[in-house]
Amino acid sequence: MEKFNESLPFDKRLWAEDIKGSQAYAKALAKAGILTHDEAAVIVDGLAKVAEEWKAGGFVVKPGDEDIHTANERRLTELVGAVGGKLHTGRSRNDQVATDYRLWLVGQVEVMRAELAELMRVASDRSEAEVEVLMPGFTHLQNAMTVRWSHWLMSHAAAWQRDDMRLRDLLPRVATLPLGSGALAGNPFLVDRQFIAKELGFSGGVCPNSMDAVSDRDFVIETVFAASLLCVHLSRWAEDLIIYSSGPFGYVQCSDAYATGSSLMPQKKNPDALELIRGKGGRVQGNLMGVMAVLKGTPTTYNKDLQECWELLFDTVDTVHDVVRIATGVLSTIKIRPDRMKSGLSADMLATDLAEYLVRKGVPFRETHHHSGAAVKMAEDRGCAMSDLTVADLKTIHPLFTDDVAAVWDFNRSAEMRDTEGGTSKRSVLEQVQKMRSYLVAEGKH
Amino acid sequence: MEKFNESLPFDKRLWAEDIKGSQAYAKALAKAGILTHDEAAVIVDGLAKVAEEWKAGGFVVKPGDEDIHTANERRLTELVGAVGGKLHTGRSRNDQVATDYRLWLVGQVEVMRAELAELMRVASDRSEAEVEVLMPGFTHLQNAMTVRWSHWLMSHAAAWQRDDMRLRDLLPRVATLPLGSGALAGNPFLVDRQFIAKELGFSGGVCPNSMDAVSDRDFVIETVFAASLLCVHLSRWAEDLIIYSSGPFGYVQCSDAYATGSSLMPQKKNPDALELIRGKGGRVQGNLMGVMAVLKGTPTTYNKDLQECWELLFDTVDTVHDVVRIATGVLSTIKIRPDRMKSGLSADMLATDLAEYLVRKGVPFRETHHHSGAAVKMAEDRGCAMSDLTVADLKTIHPLFTDDVAAVWDFNRSAEMRDTEGGTSKRSVLEQVQKMRSYLVAEGKH
Amino acid sequence: MEKFNESLPFDKRLWAEDIKGSQAYAKALAKAGILTHDEAAVIVDGLAKVAEEWKAGGFVVKPGDEDIHTANERRLTELVGAVGGKLHTGRSRNDQVATDYRLWLVGQVEVMRAELAELMRVASDRSEAEVEVLMPGFTHLQNAMTVRWSHWLMSHAAAWQRDDMRLRDLLPRVATLPLGSGALAGNPFLVDRQFIAKELGFSGGVCPNSMDAVSDRDFVIETVFAASLLCVHLSRWAEDLIIYSSGPFGYVQCSDAYATGSSLMPQKKNPDALELIRGKGGRVQGNLMGVMAVLKGTPTTYNKDLQECWELLFDTVDTVHDVVRIATGVLSTIKIRPDRMKSGLSADMLATDLAEYLVRKGVPFRETHHHSGAAVKMAEDRGCAMSDLTVADLKTIHPLFTDDVAAVWDFNRSAEMRDTEGGTSKRSVLEQVQKMRSYLVAEGKH
Amino acid sequence: MEKFNESLPFDKRLWAEDIKGSQAYAKALAKAGILTHDEAAVIVDGLAKVAEEWKAGGFVVKPGDEDIHTANERRLTELVGAVGGKLHTGRSRNDQVATDYRLWLVGQVEVMRAELAELMRVASDRSEAEVEVLMPGFTHLQNAMTVRWSHWLMSHAAAWQRDDMRLRDLLPRVATLPLGSGALAGNPFLVDRQFIAKELGFSGGVCPNSMDAVSDRDFVIETVFAASLLCVHLSRWAEDLIIYSSGPFGYVQCSDAYATGSSLMPQKKNPDALELIRGKGGRVQGNLMGVMAVLKGTPTTYNKDLQECWELLFDTVDTVHDVVRIATGVLSTIKIRPDRMKSGLSADMLATDLAEYLVRKGVPFRETHHHSGAAVKMAEDRGCAMSDLTVADLKTIHPLFTDDVAAVWDFNRSAEMRDTEGGTSKRSVLEQVQKMRSYLVAEGKH
Repeated sequence: MEKFNESLPFDKRLWAEDIKGSQAYAKALAKAGILTHDEAAVIVDGLAKVAEEWKAGGFVVKPGDEDIHTANERRLTELVGAVGGKLHTGRSRNDQVATDYRLWLVGQVEVMRAELAELMRVASDRSEAEVEVLMPGFTHLQNAMTVRWSHWLMSHAAAWQRDDMRLRDLLPRVATLPLGSGALAGNPFLVDRQFIAKELGFSGGVCPNSMDAVSDRDFVIETVFAASLLCVHLSRWAEDLIIYSSGPFGYVQCSDAYATGSSLMPQKKNPDALELIRGKGGRVQGNLMGVMAVLKGTPTTYNKDLQECWELLFDTVDTVHDVVRIATGVLSTIKIRPDRMKSGLSADMLATDLAEYLVRKGVPFRETHHHSGAAVKMAEDRGCAMSDLTVADLKTIHPLFTDDVAAVWDFNRSAEMRDTEGGTSKRSVLEQVQKMRSYLVAEGKH
Repeated sequence: MEKFNESLPFDKRLWAEDIKGSQAYAKALAKAGILTHDEAAVIVDGLAKVAEEWKAGGFVVKPGDEDIHTANERRLTELVGAVGGKLHTGRSRNDQVATDYRLWLVGQVEVMRAELAELMRVASDRSEAEVEVLMPGFTHLQNAMTVRWSHWLMSHAAAWQRDDMRLRDLLPRVATLPLGSGALAGNPFLVDRQFIAKELGFSGGVCPNSMDAVSDRDFVIETVFAASLLCVHLSRWAEDLIIYSSGPFGYVQCSDAYATGSSLMPQKKNPDALELIRGKGGRVQGNLMGVMAVLKGTPTTYNKDLQECWELLFDTVDTVHDVVRIATGVLSTIKIRPDRMKSGLSADMLATDLAEYLVRKGVPFRETHHHSGAAVKMAEDRGCAMSDLTVADLKTIHPLFTDDVAAVWDFNRSAEMRDTEGGTSKRSVLEQVQKMRSYLVAEGKH
Repeated sequence: MEKFNESLPFDKRLWAEDIKGSQAYAKALAKAGILTHDEAAVIVDGLAKVAEEWKAGGFVVKPGDEDIHTANERRLTELVGAVGGKLHTGRSRNDQVATDYRLWLVGQVEVMRAELAELMRVASDRSEAEVEVLMPGFTHLQNAMTVRWSHWLMSHAAAWQRDDMRLRDLLPRVATLPLGSGALAGNPFLVDRQFIAKELGFSGGVCPNSMDAVSDRDFVIETVFAASLLCVHLSRWAEDLIIYSSGPFGYVQCSDAYATGSSLMPQKKNPDALELIRGKGGRVQGNLMGVMAVLKGTPTTYNKDLQECWELLFDTVDTVHDVVRIATGVLSTIKIRPDRMKSGLSADMLATDLAEYLVRKGVPFRETHHHSGAAVKMAEDRGCAMSDLTVADLKTIHPLFTDDVAAVWDFNRSAEMRDTEGGTSKRSVLEQVQKMRSYLVAEGKH
Repeated sequence: MEKFNESLPFDKRLWAEDIKGSQAYAKALAKAGILTHDEAAVIVDGLAKVAEEWKAGGFVVKPGDEDIHTANERRLTELVGAVGGKLHTGRSRNDQVATDYRLWLVGQVEVMRAELAELMRVASDRSEAEVEVLMPGFTHLQNAMTVRWSHWLMSHAAAWQRDDMRLRDLLPRVATLPLGSGALAGNPFLVDRQFIAKELGFSGGVCPNSMDAVSDRDFVIETVFAASLLCVHLSRWAEDLIIYSSGPFGYVQCSDAYATGSSLMPQKKNPDALELIRGKGGRVQGNLMGVMAVLKGTPTTYNKDLQECWELLFDTVDTVHDVVRIATGVLSTIKIRPDRMKSGLSADMLATDLAEYLVRKGVPFRETHHHSGAAVKMAEDRGCAMSDLTVADLKTIHPLFTDDVAAVWDFNRSAEMRDTEGGTSKRSVLEQVQKMRSYLVAEGKH
């Protein structure tokens, strides 16, 4: 049962936050007149010594240290004597633990944002450098239209940008201080919670209601959700690249550092890194369902069930660090094969351009769609490419087809025509790159 | 297969948004010189007539109308002739459908926020009116400390406020325009997407990348998540009230309008409304899992799988409207029984106050915790209430107990002591009410 | 609130089961002496008339009919008078509703099994007919080894067979009778529950404990789970076919009946049916999460939350019917392109065979793996196929390579070598077909 | 990347199964003539030595040991020389890893069943011993009817029994042998897979299709599902006990071994064990969603994503062991307070009995329900208990009420009346106990 109950094996990684939180609380007790300034100083210094021990790897866990909070207080009291027993005045593990995790998570979210910014930067740089490369664009995984490789890259960067915005928006809800809420009813010693929030850098202020403060795990769930959606995005990106690196596609090739061989088949180079990224998306989604199911099943204020959230949070945050960094490595080093991409372009992918040719001559689009469809069918029936149809052939479909229709059979022109904001023309793609960079600068990530 | 594929049975509720989006697009085509201004006017007016038919209930669905988009365009062309076939120029169902749903969802999120504001208002009003009522506060569902009923009410309101913030924060990511992205590669007719965004009131601007624009369902997932967490909060609130309305508690009684009887047991008044609210929390959580699993399994750009998201979105939004409105009704009419709450207060819930009594006389809290624990045990052993222990009894535990200890045995005093920000004192609770009201005013919800 | 509470809009599809259950219960009440045999006959006949009305579409719902149970009893009493009021004696909606749904579900599971059997039959028939067709087998979506198309087909059939086994195994737990449990405490009129179980064809007997009987929703959750895993299997199968029908693969082509065009791109034939099947996998997974989350959050016996399970069950069962039938249609009509499959076979997919060549000459596999790897590299460096390497070339790698190595470069031979049970040789695949057919016969599905 | 890819940190716990599987495979290679019997003997003995090293804690992991399979083979070759390199002939990590996990899981499922049997046994023993104890039964958490405490106990045991049946039914699908499937296409050395299955005790035979065999993770998902539903049941059971141990209920009291105190409130004894059990239900549900989401997103045969399943499986199995054992401990030691249960019984819980009184005098139940309801209201209006109404009072409601109605006001009689199979009478509850014990004997668990 003790083993079932204890959390030290996983929560000891919060030692630094637990100590910072206690130091701030000791100061607040002094400010409130509950500790003398000398007592507070002894405690703050004692805690600093405990921190030194953790940092140096010298902290010795003892039987009875069921969590990081009791471990640190036990050690403090060994170091400074009975006055250490004054630290926990008016405080409960309920408000303490929530404070420690929030403090830790604020830092982690910042790191995730920095990692994500690096990924967006790599995508932007490659987009700029490789903007000339054309590739088949797919919908329903069927040949659709010509797009730029860079346009594909920036489409994923756009999703990552939304992930970053979500992390930015949720940060104030993480950085809100529970300390000073006691077990549930509030703190009876009039500690200045705004002071503690400032000491600890909680930008979102203080939790407005003590019963909610000890019970609220939104900061966990919201972060796990944002992580989960980010991982879904990376999963879709990885899925694309896995397909693009298959034999029949052959558009890209993972660098050896991110591929592995087979124990049986000597020729194999498997995109393991991408597959693991895709798989992690499922794992983190499971974590999300876990934390939500835990919370849903509990009544008001603190219940021990909430302890289950922490390991799921740790696993999620660690996984995000891993997948974003690995994705950045893969993206930095993946080799593209523009020839294979080019050979994937087929004339029928210009059928829409052919319809638009007639549109520009005044024919309603609904009709041009049918006329172009007729040309697709004619080519199919003859077993030739659409671009092999002569003007005379096309004239049998619609009289407005004239010699200038030849210009349609040009993949680069097709891409360049899509020059509206967000489109696949070179100008538009480079504009997207610039806007992404401006965003990173504005967010202080560059 | 046709039935498997079609979406009209559920997407017809978007008729108004589909028409608005098409009208804005027709204007943009005119601005781009693709339609004459006369053509655009004919189309815009024709669409208005289609809208009239829907509004009047006179729109007739025909075979082949597989979704709201084809139905509206088919009818438009019947009304205005071949020029109707020019409307879809450069547009794809991929960018059209995403635009329609976003437009619809922006409106729904605003309604959800208004409903939520009403719920917060009711909680605030009851909190103010019933601030004198004391009740047992629980942690681990065990008697913990005295709190105000209003403090409990405001603890849930604090959670709803975070829900509202999330809806506010995600709105710009919903209100971002996909139209002008074509099927995936962008629009070749240089339509002014910023113009369309303004016409339609998309406050978040335009989607930056056309491949992402037709593929992005974050706006669905993020809304379903926010709804889901909101429903978890309502589920926990309902769980509290279900427990509080049980026989042994008897703290509250649902009004007859929100309770139902039993087909077998004549004495029953079951809190069905609350139980359904609790149950809906599970349902919406399932919807979240559904949309995430759908998206995770797809490669880049549009895939038909994405159609599965819509019904889950509709179900989620409808459910949120229902549960928030029902919750507001329940909360407005639930009867509290202050006598039952009061009789639930027991002297051992003042054990912390007893420890704090010694703290104020300079004894370190860790020691006072033990001394108070000794008093708990002494009372237990004697089979009496802690408050029945004499000063002499207490002195055997610690010499600093003196006559003034009698003041500790006062539940109201215990609540009033917790006067730190966020605590359960009357002043603090009323301050929480005022801040909540200020928030609602600032958000334009009052 | 009435609308929030009522279930008639969805539970009316249970009218037949509700009537059957009530008829059996009336007989049991007569057997127990609570009804006279005449009274029971009047009730049984009256219920038969209600059933006629439903069947003929003439049943008129009235205000106050909050669910199918009250609607049927109300109508019964209109038809037969006050004696109708004796039907519900000792019964509760709690045991009635659970009985109705179980009765309905037993029938649905049988239908699902029959549909699944048809799908397995189609897979078996195609496997037999097309057993000569070779295709590239993939792991990690990378070219791995030569396999038979039929082997791929039977690999999915193997998963469907497990799904069928799960449905078979869970059936007795669905077909267990709750009726006679009252609201929770049991039935005070000594009705013979074994008799009712037999009347209704409940093969699993009676629920052993009345409190559990009204509370147990395992039969829902277990069925939704089995459906959910089945849908995951169909999703993976669909994913394969979507990839195989992409331009660069081109191994298969969906028939027009299961593909749809694009509103913008005239050349498009999208595999919508397969994508919807893949998407439904996510939806049903969400349903599973929903029912589990609902149940987890409730205490003992009946709580109104449980009502949320029904719509999720209906949606799941309907979806399974749809996807299995559509999958059967797709599989029956999909066109394969053996030439494209054949052209996807590349000599490096025989690298394992090359290693095995040396194994058969006594070289330890770990070494042969390296030697074959060296041959892969040599071919790569020279830009030629492995099969273009001469015996002399190979001898530089290992002296045991001799002229007979030429036999290795044969894809059909590679497949035929894998003649162990479960392997891809023609004999083995046809054996798999026979075993599948035997299974279907043994399960009475053929 | 290496760290991201490696699995040794978690899969080393499979060392024994990996060695057993390899020993069986070496024998099969010898049987097939690929190894001489001497070679096979050297390998089998070498592997035994590796096993000794693991058992003794002396196995040294080396750089490059990315998983347990490469680690064991590397060490084998160090011990026995080049012949060790023959072990992997015709085998792939794909079929090897699936074999190891299945072998491990078969053992774990058996342990889970034994643990569950112990829990059912404790429930049965307490039920028998405490069968006289009456308590209020609840529906919707509202006072419903009198039940026996033992009836409540057996209602949960009934759910655990279904869990056990599920584990029993899925076992053959776990115990099915993948080995001999190679990477995907089958084994070219005609190893006797039936022989290997027998050697390893795989009761379910061999996987029928090699492509499916390396890809199938149903055995993981199905086990995680069964575990997940088991945990939902334990969560509901824990929820009941948490509520019953709250102050206002006070029906039960956790033993000190399974309760913990508060860092702030000296009087607290929190039911932490039960809350953790309830919370674990959410965690395992998350694991289920995780494994399903991972699998759904992959195409045919082996993909590296599948590696993500293992840690979720380990966590699930470990959690089940913990929660079932802790639940058994809690249930063995929890103290009941029959007086508190008794004082929770209120006369209105006999309202159904009052209605049944009239039923037995021939009044249709629908009418008696109203009459009893009138009595409930009369008592409520007078502020008295229903049992305080006089016969004269009752006669004003219905003339058939006579003096013998007094017998109705007896809680024990109410319970004893429910003597139908599954009901709450003493005889019926003891019968349930006997059937449960017979089940355990029949399943070899007693």
